[in-house]
Amino acid sequence: MRSKTLKVVLVTVAVLLGGCTSVSGSALVIEEQGSFFVGGKDVKSDSLAAGTAFPPSGTITTHQMYVRYQKPPRAKLPVVLIHGCCLTGKTWESTPDGRAGWDELFVRAGYPTYVVDQVARGRSAANTSNVIAAKTGAQPVSAIDAVFFASHEAAWEIFRFGPKYPQRHPDSQFPLDHVGEFWKQMVPDWNFSLGSVDVQMGTANPTIGNLASLTRLIGPSVLVGHSQSGIYPFNVARVHKQGVAAIVALEPAFCPAPGDSMDAFRNIPILMVWGEHNDKSAFWAPRLRACNEFADAARRAGVPIQVVMLSEVGFAGASHMLMQDRNSDSIAQWLVSWLSKAVK
Amino acid sequence: MRSKTLKVVLVTVAVLLGGCTSVSGSALVIEEQGSFFVGGKDVKSDSLAAGTAFPPSGTITTHQMYVRYQKPPRAKLPVVLIHGCCLTGKTWESTPDGRAGWDELFVRAGYPTYVVDQVARGRSAANTSNVIAAKTGAQPVSAIDAVFFASHEAAWEIFRFGPKYPQRHPDSQFPLDHVGEFWKQMVPDWNFSLGSVDVQMGTANPTIGNLASLTRLIGPSVLVGHSQSGIYPFNVARVHKQGVAAIVALEPAFCPAPGDSMDAFRNIPILMVWGEHNDKSAFWAPRLRACNEFADAARRAGVPIQVVMLSEVGFAGASHMLMQDRNSDSIAQWLVSWLSKAVK
Repeated sequence: MRSKTLKVVLVTVAVLLGGCTSVSGSALVIEEQGSFFVGGKDVKSDSLAAGTAFPPSGTITTHQMYVRYQKPPRAKLPVVLIHGCCLTGKTWESTPDGRAGWDELFVRAGYPTYVVDQVARGRSAANTSNVIAAKTGAQPVSAIDAVFFASHEAAWEIFRFGPKYPQRHPDSQFPLDHVGEFWKQMVPDWNFSLGSVDVQMGTANPTIGNLASLTRLIGPSVLVGHSQSGIYPFNVARVHKQGVAAIVALEPAFCPAPGDSMDAFRNIPILMVWGEHNDKSAFWAPRLRACNEFADAARRAGVPIQVVMLSEVGFAGASHMLMQDRNSDSIAQWLVSWLSKAVK
Repeated sequence: MRSKTLKVVLVTVAVLLGGCTSVSGSALVIEEQGSFFVGGKDVKSDSLAAGTAFPPSGTITTHQMYVRYQKPPRAKLPVVLIHGCCLTGKTWESTPDGRAGWDELFVRAGYPTYVVDQVARGRSAANTSNVIAAKTGAQPVSAIDAVFFASHEAAWEIFRFGPKYPQRHPDSQFPLDHVGEFWKQMVPDWNFSLGSVDVQMGTANPTIGNLASLTRLIGPSVLVGHSQSGIYPFNVARVHKQGVAAIVALEPAFCPAPGDSMDAFRNIPILMVWGEHNDKSAFWAPRLRACNEFADAARRAGVPIQVVMLSEVGFAGASHMLMQDRNSDSIAQWLVSWLSKAVK
């Protein structure tokens, strides 16, 4: 009878604890979570407002980077997820068809996961002074920063949902029945307020310094860049190599040049990942070629870099938004398996 | 001996489960979490970009509202946290001095908690077409939306850290040693792109329709507005009363007028909360007075409304950002206790 009681108790323990493990689908246990900012500087402006309750002149803080994180118990190395053009950290959260995002899948796999909004995007304030300065005549309209917004039609092609809006790639894994939810993720991109494309894609982009500072806070991290931010992990390695435990570049829009010094990348495991139909895209074909040239040069210089075409490892039909594709869970799992081998 | 074994097992159960309960400080158990958008409409524009890789013409989606949520096991009624002027949903996350935000404290108290970014703010895209139209000359500069940014100096007074920047209120509970982290939370406020102040503060503000839609999705909810959004829960009740289980208006910058119909608010438990030094503030004194007049009229009409000065319930020195004050945990606990009585 006592033994039976013990059995009942043990079964109860198992059931109750079942609700506490980190297996996908069951309840999630968070050791610690929160959000904070990295970086930022104070600037004075006389064009903060026009005709509102708030006065036009004063000090604001810009160039800070918003970071949200969750840590599982018994955590591995941190993973930092960096979104691309015209988007925010939302990229990595729940998918358009309502499944868990990579932000949660990596936590479930044991990685403390940090999701950022690039400087001047989303919850990281853009400085709109030039806009108000133009409105009040304090500055010419030419001084307005070239903020841009990706239209559905343009994004359809560049994110490779199909060859031309609204035609679909028949094999596409993107959940196109929910594309409306994806359009809602798009926001104005203020990267030109930080400088030219050269500045944006170089180490002078304040997001790079902020990512380096983040790794100083949280320790060496796996930096995952996507598209516009595909080159960011490389640039972080250039300014603070010790902060970079591994680089994952998902469909990078830019890569370091093949002639660049490879010193910053030596001994850092690097994975470059490409989806489908890049070779037929006017936007992507030259980028794929340029990044392959960099990868070849890096490999020759002894950098442990791998370039993976997803179609060749069992993931046919991957879109540019592969972290939101219908098989994004499996791609995440594959990435976790790469990580667990690449990073001790 | 058997009984001793049972005891050991039971103690182990208690210890193991201890790590899974929702008590502040210990690990957090999340039944479900994620993010999504509510609302939104497609609009065409010829001013999406100027001189960038993306073309100027096409369709974009605007007026959607970003929502992030976490549900604890055995959940009570949902709580929706709505931020105020010049800020985003970050308001409710980790405090400037690094403690858990109300977003987490409410989850720990058993409430599924929804944090939004108001329409045209943060991760909810602003429509920047008028800006680019001015830059290219397609529209006059006067058509640029009156986006505004709160300076440190102005915010210091309006958020009542002190009577005048940089003087402090000696009794202030705001963690002023970390005010720099608060400045980083501020973003451009595009509410004027939605219409005049009357539109912003009425039911036509698209954030109101989106909040109503949110309650249709998640069921009757406790709506918590703050400052600029203090009137929003009332407006949601005006368009979809069934969605509003209770209203918490934290230092509302606007209230319904005393002469307005009170039908929408009848039978909804309402709590209005004020911090310290409002009466000495040129900005807040008339607002406090107007809201008190509304509360009196509502009470006379039989609406279950309570107005609480925090200083009179044990929380002296509360700033306008009371959810970030050094005693924000205790204020949250007090609010949870009010809620548990007000909402069955």
